[in-house]
Amino acid sequence: MEKFDINILGCGSATPNPRHYTSSQVVDIRGKLFMIDCGEGTQIQMRHQRMAFARLNHILISHLHGDHCFGLLGIISSFGLLGRTAPLYVHAPSELWTILKPELDFYCRELEFEVVFQGFDPNVVHTIYEDRSLTIDTIPLRHRIPCAGFLLREKPVADHLDRQMADFYGVPTWDFARIKAGGDFTMPDGTIIPHSRLTKPAGPVRSYAYCCDTAWNPGMVEQINGVNLLYHDCTYSSEHSDRAELHYHSTAAQAARIASQANVGMLMLGHFSARYYDEEILKNEAGAIFPNTILAKEGLHVPVV
Amino acid sequence: MEKFDINILGCGSATPNPRHYTSSQVVDIRGKLFMIDCGEGTQIQMRHQRMAFARLNHILISHLHGDHCFGLLGIISSFGLLGRTAPLYVHAPSELWTILKPELDFYCRELEFEVVFQGFDPNVVHTIYEDRSLTIDTIPLRHRIPCAGFLLREKPVADHLDRQMADFYGVPTWDFARIKAGGDFTMPDGTIIPHSRLTKPAGPVRSYAYCCDTAWNPGMVEQINGVNLLYHDCTYSSEHSDRAELHYHSTAAQAARIASQANVGMLMLGHFSARYYDEEILKNEAGAIFPNTILAKEGLHVPVV
Repeated sequence: MEKFDINILGCGSATPNPRHYTSSQVVDIRGKLFMIDCGEGTQIQMRHQRMAFARLNHILISHLHGDHCFGLLGIISSFGLLGRTAPLYVHAPSELWTILKPELDFYCRELEFEVVFQGFDPNVVHTIYEDRSLTIDTIPLRHRIPCAGFLLREKPVADHLDRQMADFYGVPTWDFARIKAGGDFTMPDGTIIPHSRLTKPAGPVRSYAYCCDTAWNPGMVEQINGVNLLYHDCTYSSEHSDRAELHYHSTAAQAARIASQANVGMLMLGHFSARYYDEEILKNEAGAIFPNTILAKEGLHVPVV
Repeated sequence: MEKFDINILGCGSATPNPRHYTSSQVVDIRGKLFMIDCGEGTQIQMRHQRMAFARLNHILISHLHGDHCFGLLGIISSFGLLGRTAPLYVHAPSELWTILKPELDFYCRELEFEVVFQGFDPNVVHTIYEDRSLTIDTIPLRHRIPCAGFLLREKPVADHLDRQMADFYGVPTWDFARIKAGGDFTMPDGTIIPHSRLTKPAGPVRSYAYCCDTAWNPGMVEQINGVNLLYHDCTYSSEHSDRAELHYHSTAAQAARIASQANVGMLMLGHFSARYYDEEILKNEAGAIFPNTILAKEGLHVPVV
């Protein structure tokens, strides 16, 4: 199966602390790296996890709180010092450019690569990225300031040709594409060889939703329905649901209810408040509602399956 | 002896790497913390070293390269989230305010403390801080952009009164200040008790010079003459002296020659290029010229004696 891994660089909230970096993760899809959020120290974490800077061409920023974007200037600057020439795409709420542009002009006048800023409005769904095998859509969330989640979804691929069977029935190479796309093959004697005998089914389409930071937000359930993996805001336990409400974050139970309503495959909890020394309390709270729940952790690699 | 310690938070150059954070250190003088430079991740390092954020009121920035100041916005933001109310003084080349002010306006609108920006011109000597026991002067350095070093020097203090001796000779308490300041005491019978019998000498005045980033800069030798500890740019070994010249940094040998010419007590090498996996080569090169040389390292605490 093609690679589709989530790598956690930071999963704490608000300020870095001795146990957690602030928000950042890298999605590795078939060797292409997509960074989601970029808190302070993200480039340090990438180094520690020995990730190839050269394979990172897209950085997605969910919203403009510092714990999600204070590492951006540093990583761009380092790319420049390390001799990068390939363009770097930054997908973020449009307002970011009003400060990032002057910062780049001030600190990074000598970059030999282009920072391509692609702003979006976090309040509506946009397809911000698309290639042959993947789409990335924004997910409107409910936070203190406009904030987007991201839905990364593989595109359906054609079935794989069973080359041995194709050769056995004498399918000419120029007809392969049509067979893979769903066609049957008619032999010279009129016998029809069905598509299913000539191909092996492609793997299922996989998807990942990153929904952080957000208050209780059932409005997104339809959009993320059936994703294989959901990363959800879990800043608090239910004991602190008043704080969750006040700061537009979620409790573990709320994250689990969203996971349950959206029929996701697995729930990963993140964006932990520093008040929980042992985050098992959050996992237990969510697990009682949605059993297939794990805790994010710096250094964790989770394949999307 | 009163505390006067240097704590290294980062001593790498250019970009963070798995072995080094970028430049930052905290000078602890009698419980007051002064931060010198603030590369990305500095607040993370402070947390790891369990330093009290509340005792930090002054941040000194040497120059406006990202590896010396990209952590500033994050630490200010975190101070805000942690409920700081005391003013924070930022002493930096004046130009910094043209970007820091818009950054604070963008990201930190709700701070409940004042960021007091005190700009200076790195090309001339300024006294940027003074209290009853300490002065901090800038040191003009030779770098690609205007860059200052910092000279932290204790003020001479009065001798300590030897209370037992003072009582023995019947010195009245109202006369203590005069005696401590250097006076003798005349007894009722006319006998003169010399100052030296009534007091114990104060400890020697100590001083610390931070000279990073700089090319070979003998112009500063007079200003830093006799400091107890010198932290000096040591980006390269002599093998790469052409690169040192090109980028306005120093070699280990140059750092040692400055230490020798300035008759400093001890030399600490820092701002290492990532190319040296084993920095002993730098220590050996400097040590051959100036034996009392040590390597900076994250987590190192060096008392100034």
